[in-house]
Amino acid sequence: MSQRVLSAEIAEHPGEPVRLAGWVHRRRVLARVTFLIVRDRAGLAQVVVPAGVPVPPEESVVEVTGTVVANAAAPGGHEVAYGAIEVISPAEAPPVELFRPALEAGLPALLDHAAVSLRHPARRAVFAAGAAAVAAFRGTLDGLGFTEIFTPKIVGSATESGANVFTLDYFGRKAYLAQSPQFYKQTMVGVFERVYEAGPVFRAEPHDTSRHLAAHTSLDAELGFIRDHRDVMAVLTRCVRAMVEAAGLGAVRMPDEIPVVHFTEALRLAGADPDEPDLAPEHERALGVWAAREHGSDLLYVEGYPMSKRPFYTHPQPSDPRWSNSFDLLFRGMELVTGGQRRHVYADYVAALGGDTAGLAGYLEAFRHGMPPHGGFAIGLERFLARLSGAANVRETTLFPRDLHRLAP
Amino acid sequence: MSQRVLSAEIAEHPGEPVRLAGWVHRRRVLARVTFLIVRDRAGLAQVVVPAGVPVPPEESVVEVTGTVVANAAAPGGHEVAYGAIEVISPAEAPPVELFRPALEAGLPALLDHAAVSLRHPARRAVFAAGAAAVAAFRGTLDGLGFTEIFTPKIVGSATESGANVFTLDYFGRKAYLAQSPQFYKQTMVGVFERVYEAGPVFRAEPHDTSRHLAAHTSLDAELGFIRDHRDVMAVLTRCVRAMVEAAGLGAVRMPDEIPVVHFTEALRLAGADPDEPDLAPEHERALGVWAAREHGSDLLYVEGYPMSKRPFYTHPQPSDPRWSNSFDLLFRGMELVTGGQRRHVYADYVAALGGDTAGLAGYLEAFRHGMPPHGGFAIGLERFLARLSGAANVRETTLFPRDLHRLAP
Repeated sequence: MSQRVLSAEIAEHPGEPVRLAGWVHRRRVLARVTFLIVRDRAGLAQVVVPAGVPVPPEESVVEVTGTVVANAAAPGGHEVAYGAIEVISPAEAPPVELFRPALEAGLPALLDHAAVSLRHPARRAVFAAGAAAVAAFRGTLDGLGFTEIFTPKIVGSATESGANVFTLDYFGRKAYLAQSPQFYKQTMVGVFERVYEAGPVFRAEPHDTSRHLAAHTSLDAELGFIRDHRDVMAVLTRCVRAMVEAAGLGAVRMPDEIPVVHFTEALRLAGADPDEPDLAPEHERALGVWAAREHGSDLLYVEGYPMSKRPFYTHPQPSDPRWSNSFDLLFRGMELVTGGQRRHVYADYVAALGGDTAGLAGYLEAFRHGMPPHGGFAIGLERFLARLSGAANVRETTLFPRDLHRLAP
Repeated sequence: MSQRVLSAEIAEHPGEPVRLAGWVHRRRVLARVTFLIVRDRAGLAQVVVPAGVPVPPEESVVEVTGTVVANAAAPGGHEVAYGAIEVISPAEAPPVELFRPALEAGLPALLDHAAVSLRHPARRAVFAAGAAAVAAFRGTLDGLGFTEIFTPKIVGSATESGANVFTLDYFGRKAYLAQSPQFYKQTMVGVFERVYEAGPVFRAEPHDTSRHLAAHTSLDAELGFIRDHRDVMAVLTRCVRAMVEAAGLGAVRMPDEIPVVHFTEALRLAGADPDEPDLAPEHERALGVWAAREHGSDLLYVEGYPMSKRPFYTHPQPSDPRWSNSFDLLFRGMELVTGGQRRHVYADYVAALGGDTAGLAGYLEAFRHGMPPHGGFAIGLERFLARLSGAANVRETTLFPRDLHRLAP
């Protein structure tokens, strides 16, 4: 038997016999001929089958042999003239119609039948883009001397935020699912200076919204020997630029220098009360309009959020400790990434925690024994893909989402 | 202030003023001079400080300015003649002595003080090798047309093995931590044909051994349109070869073709009873000796394990269904990787499960709607590093291990 040829490769074999293997994506039975569209990991190929030859139903796994023929009307300019077809695995009628250009099922049906609906080329493209974006994230950081780490997802204390944490029976003890690798990535700055992790994080999110999931993939980075959060933003900008390019989900206006506004200025630009402690969604939207109009940019950094709204490890703004050396990166008026400089002096942690360091000994040990100024960020992969692709719901950019109601498939 | 220069770069700046930043790795105070060793992410640099100048204690974070001088006795052939030193972060005396060539603390102390002990160059090297090995795993598979996936770690049914599963309170319902991405990676073969995932897996392992952890990093791959498990082994061989080279933890004898023996032959070679249902550790050791002697190979595939000892999704050996199309890869007489061909026909799953498909609908849907012959494997990252580095305990190759007793740091 000849070597398998992928759909995308048939144009390289004009006039030659080839063997395709894949799924029956679509059958179009006409009076004189049947068009059989075979789907494989590379795309679609058209096979021309004489009338009367039985063609197996959609989603059957088949091997087709035939001869490559040029046809300007076929996808890729070539098609395969039928020689023989063998059914490798039979298939029942699919729960969603995969051959239509756009899936017509609602989101619950798509998610319930993920095993099949994810095969749709448009769904598949989202997750292929995600894989490419993660590779770009890693590639950018590898090039900057970062080291990949793998940190625990089961933790002994729920102290990072306290709320929205999943509780686990750990050999008869109580344990928790990590809400982020924050403590560990900071600790590892003491080892490798520059680290990243792409892994799952867990939030027992009681809100049933289009933006919240109980678990998502977090792209975390942390780096030491920075001057301040601006050095972190410079690394994030390089990552986001590479990720957007690699994902290829559409054009993003991203000038060489992404504009930066201070939180106090952001409130003013958004027409908000200057005493507001945070940016409301309508403020972020207004800032998105402003950045597009004034800077031709889909991206905007807001820095200097009030210390009162940021976690205890946040480094204050040296010139005015009401504000912090933290930032958000807004994408078209919605938060995409959060990050900032962290505290690095042990005594500052003890003070920020009000002396209550219970459960944090293993983390704070890093600061007792010398830590450089450092900071980092976390990109939510599914949110990144949703914003980039224009998906209304982050469930559309998660392979098998988990939320208040959904625990399967 | 001049640009920071890394320790590994000072030889590029002979006679020039440089600025180092890092940790005080060691101080050697002599009568006329103090040698200050600065550690940064690239390695170590020696700074020559005049007697009488105070030098901060070990693990302090410092910036040192000075002039690069050639000195054949210094690491890398160059050292820095002291100009000035600034303490960025103070440090208490470390709980383990990091400046000694080998850490002298016992494993519990190393793990309790991971935040500091991981800074030791020998410890750090293990995890840098791990990062390189994972990059090689991904790079090999990317080159073969695989797509990276991110699958759920919280699952609704504990059906894969039933035993040793962590139970979770999921919004008032019972849920479980995934013991492997097995079901999801198979499902995704229906989407991308070839997929991989590097992520955490969880086992509520009640045994307190040097080989078992409650969580580890699993490097999973799965591919469709295979003839049988030998195609899976070919991909695994490429991965392992690339990972060994990238890790650089020592020489591994790995011929172009890794020897393969059938389970029945393995029993005979190991001098075991031909009715044994599995290989005992002493059998694996004997096989390791045999492979080294007969094939000059540290690696040996054993294929064809009895169906009775393999999970329900295992594909039988077509010529004799007592055996399976599964395999183990032994490394110097110990199991390193497990893999095999999986069933791909829906009716075969229903039969293998004895009709009890409860909780598996979302998984089995993939097979109802056309799945190609496929298979895959899972490499335990920490076990791989332990075997390669000769570590006696897999806790030595895990950043922050989790076991029956350990939940922190």
